[in-house]
Amino acid sequence: MDITEFRKRGKEMVDYVADYLETIEQRQVYPDVEPGYLRSLIPEEAPDEPEAYEDVIQDIERVIMPGVTHWHSPFFFAYFPTASSFPAMLADMLCGAIGCIGFSWAASPACTELETVMLDWLGKMLRLPKDFLAGTEGQGGGVIQGTASEATLVALLAARSRIVKQIQAHDPQRSEVEIISKLVAYSSDQAHSSVERAGLIGGVRMKKMSTDGKFAVCGETFRKTLEEDKASGLIPFYFCATLGTTPSCAFDRITELGPICNAEGMWMHIDAAYAGSAFICPEFRPLLDGVEFADSFNFNPHKWLLVNFDCSTMWVKRRADIIGAFKMDPLYLKHDHQESGTCIHWQIPLGRRFRSLKLWFVFRMYGLRGLQAYIRKHVGLAKEFERLVRNDERFEICADVVLGLVCFRLKGSNELNELLLRRINGARRVHLVPCQLAGAFVLRFAVCSRTTESRHAQEAWRHISELASELLRGQKPRSDGTNQISLQTETSSALIWKRLRAAQCDRSAAWS
Amino acid sequence: MDITEFRKRGKEMVDYVADYLETIEQRQVYPDVEPGYLRSLIPEEAPDEPEAYEDVIQDIERVIMPGVTHWHSPFFFAYFPTASSFPAMLADMLCGAIGCIGFSWAASPACTELETVMLDWLGKMLRLPKDFLAGTEGQGGGVIQGTASEATLVALLAARSRIVKQIQAHDPQRSEVEIISKLVAYSSDQAHSSVERAGLIGGVRMKKMSTDGKFAVCGETFRKTLEEDKASGLIPFYFCATLGTTPSCAFDRITELGPICNAEGMWMHIDAAYAGSAFICPEFRPLLDGVEFADSFNFNPHKWLLVNFDCSTMWVKRRADIIGAFKMDPLYLKHDHQESGTCIHWQIPLGRRFRSLKLWFVFRMYGLRGLQAYIRKHVGLAKEFERLVRNDERFEICADVVLGLVCFRLKGSNELNELLLRRINGARRVHLVPCQLAGAFVLRFAVCSRTTESRHAQEAWRHISELASELLRGQKPRSDGTNQISLQTETSSALIWKRLRAAQCDRSAAWS
Repeated sequence: MDITEFRKRGKEMVDYVADYLETIEQRQVYPDVEPGYLRSLIPEEAPDEPEAYEDVIQDIERVIMPGVTHWHSPFFFAYFPTASSFPAMLADMLCGAIGCIGFSWAASPACTELETVMLDWLGKMLRLPKDFLAGTEGQGGGVIQGTASEATLVALLAARSRIVKQIQAHDPQRSEVEIISKLVAYSSDQAHSSVERAGLIGGVRMKKMSTDGKFAVCGETFRKTLEEDKASGLIPFYFCATLGTTPSCAFDRITELGPICNAEGMWMHIDAAYAGSAFICPEFRPLLDGVEFADSFNFNPHKWLLVNFDCSTMWVKRRADIIGAFKMDPLYLKHDHQESGTCIHWQIPLGRRFRSLKLWFVFRMYGLRGLQAYIRKHVGLAKEFERLVRNDERFEICADVVLGLVCFRLKGSNELNELLLRRINGARRVHLVPCQLAGAFVLRFAVCSRTTESRHAQEAWRHISELASELLRGQKPRSDGTNQISLQTETSSALIWKRLRAAQCDRSAAWS
Repeated sequence: MDITEFRKRGKEMVDYVADYLETIEQRQVYPDVEPGYLRSLIPEEAPDEPEAYEDVIQDIERVIMPGVTHWHSPFFFAYFPTASSFPAMLADMLCGAIGCIGFSWAASPACTELETVMLDWLGKMLRLPKDFLAGTEGQGGGVIQGTASEATLVALLAARSRIVKQIQAHDPQRSEVEIISKLVAYSSDQAHSSVERAGLIGGVRMKKMSTDGKFAVCGETFRKTLEEDKASGLIPFYFCATLGTTPSCAFDRITELGPICNAEGMWMHIDAAYAGSAFICPEFRPLLDGVEFADSFNFNPHKWLLVNFDCSTMWVKRRADIIGAFKMDPLYLKHDHQESGTCIHWQIPLGRRFRSLKLWFVFRMYGLRGLQAYIRKHVGLAKEFERLVRNDERFEICADVVLGLVCFRLKGSNELNELLLRRINGARRVHLVPCQLAGAFVLRFAVCSRTTESRHAQEAWRHISELASELLRGQKPRSDGTNQISLQTETSSALIWKRLRAAQCDRSAAWS
């Protein structure tokens, strides 16, 4: 394909993308395919000779689309949102064309510098304490990670490195291995599975703290556990607080937890993967109060701030802590102008795309007010759905509706709710996933798509309500026998429930 | 921006991208900016209200382009290539529009399934042993990682988990911490810094093996080290072999090393980040002989196989080893159809883009023959440059030219060569980075851009040769005093050399 053909095909692709998004509502939100469906639709090997572009494009509808879960359908209410906007897509096209790899300042100065400045812009939008900004002289600053999982891991590794150095400074005889064997990290029992995984990768204990009636970790529980652990010879070093948990969008009480972490010399990392975007609105900013006690803070603009995946933003108060974790050579950093606040070498991969272009385009094309309006619209839709649920006495709301997530269920057994969910997903008109809250099987309604409007929420509720009526009347689902999922519905409930409990629900309900 | 405007702006962006790439040769390959240049060019905060799209677009040339290192300029010969092609860019546009997050089969079946099948296609192109393919019943299979750094780390974590389980199966009393404290991993002293970093993150010893005259690790050295380490009570568990090292594109002797690893029950991972793409050509495939002994193999199509970043492909012989490292719940995996050969949960992040679309578009639009021709063209250009260097008796070639990299230097002191490189980069007509080989400061000429032709290699050589003549005649560089880099040239050589030695050169010369 030469450049002339690219001009033609690129414009066709723009129209295909626009058509796809303009008519996505008409597509079935969740696909009908069975595992392994795709392999039989395409050859077993790559072609020896080039194929015609028309053949490749025709295969999008023949091979790919039948197996796509349409995350940007206004009837997609599963997991949490993944962001999408036109300015972000335009910026990604430019990012692909420049195609630089920003692993050092010199490898493409604009890439590193725009990232640092955009993280300052975003930090100001969130009213982060100045400590977290790079500015021209700050000790902190921000960096784009691929996902919140990476941010959690990077923070844990930095905390591990810092505590080992601190202990060895006082007691040079103690080995790193021996110190690590005593370390203990903490998170909520509602925290995302990637937090547990960070502990596994880092080779440290990770304790899940029990949560209160609001599914939040509070100071008293934390303090008690700390005292017990210290008494038994362990070294508490890291707490990963969650603002906006995956199951129910609960908020750990960081104003209570932060001072404890500070007093104990522990690293506090805040994972606000989903909820963080809302903090640009003054009315939601109080949810972030206590961030001043944190060492690092992370959220995903690629979830709810209209920036296409991947773009997970992380700030730290002391860049030196992160750099220290990877034992970079000071002379080398000097060369790379680390002192001027650049954000390289703060992540697991060394190579990195020019992802800050997406932030720049989105911030400028929406403006702060536009972004705030977008957040408020989603929260409003969730509140609207909550009212619908509350007005139906067969249902109950299972957690406070703070942002764009509604946790609800039929009053009754877990099996009943599981059947309801299976019928909902089996019918394919809307898509939801479950969670487990205090032993209860709960349905999650997350406002996800940029194009979800009141009529979609209303229609979703009418549909769910009808399926509930059918279920309660003992009727079989109308789609019974027509697809795999609904067939499974009535037979595999024990297995599914067992799985859900085992996986703490978030592994199926979440991505990070 | 509504959908109508996106159609218009998207097509304009296609033209901007085409124009950029069509005229990239006319841009200065390396920028003139100073650290911190960008911050003063844009406001300190995001705008409250939306800006006009025209203003955003105009800022690309005003703010971004002056700070871009143009990796796709035909005069860019630094680091290793980063891939770029029109089919891959079109696929990325589609990927952005679908915008699904493939963290489980159900989250978008097409995303997971196409990835598995494309990795089988590519494995067949490389003639990987069948053990590495998923097929419909295989135990192995491939996955797309973001970077080779992540693949190295994932393999190390899997190896760590496997050895701990093996030892505990025989001796349940031994603790994980105690076992890990005895583990030792190995790599070449020419290996990429990310290998060392994987050891740091995983909390295990990483020993760098000395290399022979060809900068390769050979079996005898490895066997001797192993015996010493075992005698002192250590447990060898992981060897990361490199095929195509960053400094000189050297190849560890995996036909010797592999049988040793197998006999010792160690995990052998092969990192062929750059060189791997060449193995699709029958004449270069012998360089991969010995892969049959490996547990995992990785290379970066985003380096040299015309697939835009990020796309690092990794295969394992036993998927269960990787899954075990992250302690996934079997019931959950059953739900996600792990048994059918899908590739989820094999990486650090949980969220993932629909990256296999890029592979599919590129394989079909180029065909295997087209991709082979592309590799051969680059190797031919390197051989052509090598001949030019060899015909000039002032210069020497410092390592075998096997693929697209030529390591060369002026006969003489390191300081002389360092000055030459500074003048080359100061003049801004071509861009190169150095490496250190056996104590010598060496210049690396890597064929990088898709559009590099013979005339560019010839012109680069004429230019380098002239600068060498000036330098040897004791002339000051013509651009002296006009930019920061060339000013630094004559004053900071001690610092730079010290840095280069400290950083083992690859930290500045490589990305992964």
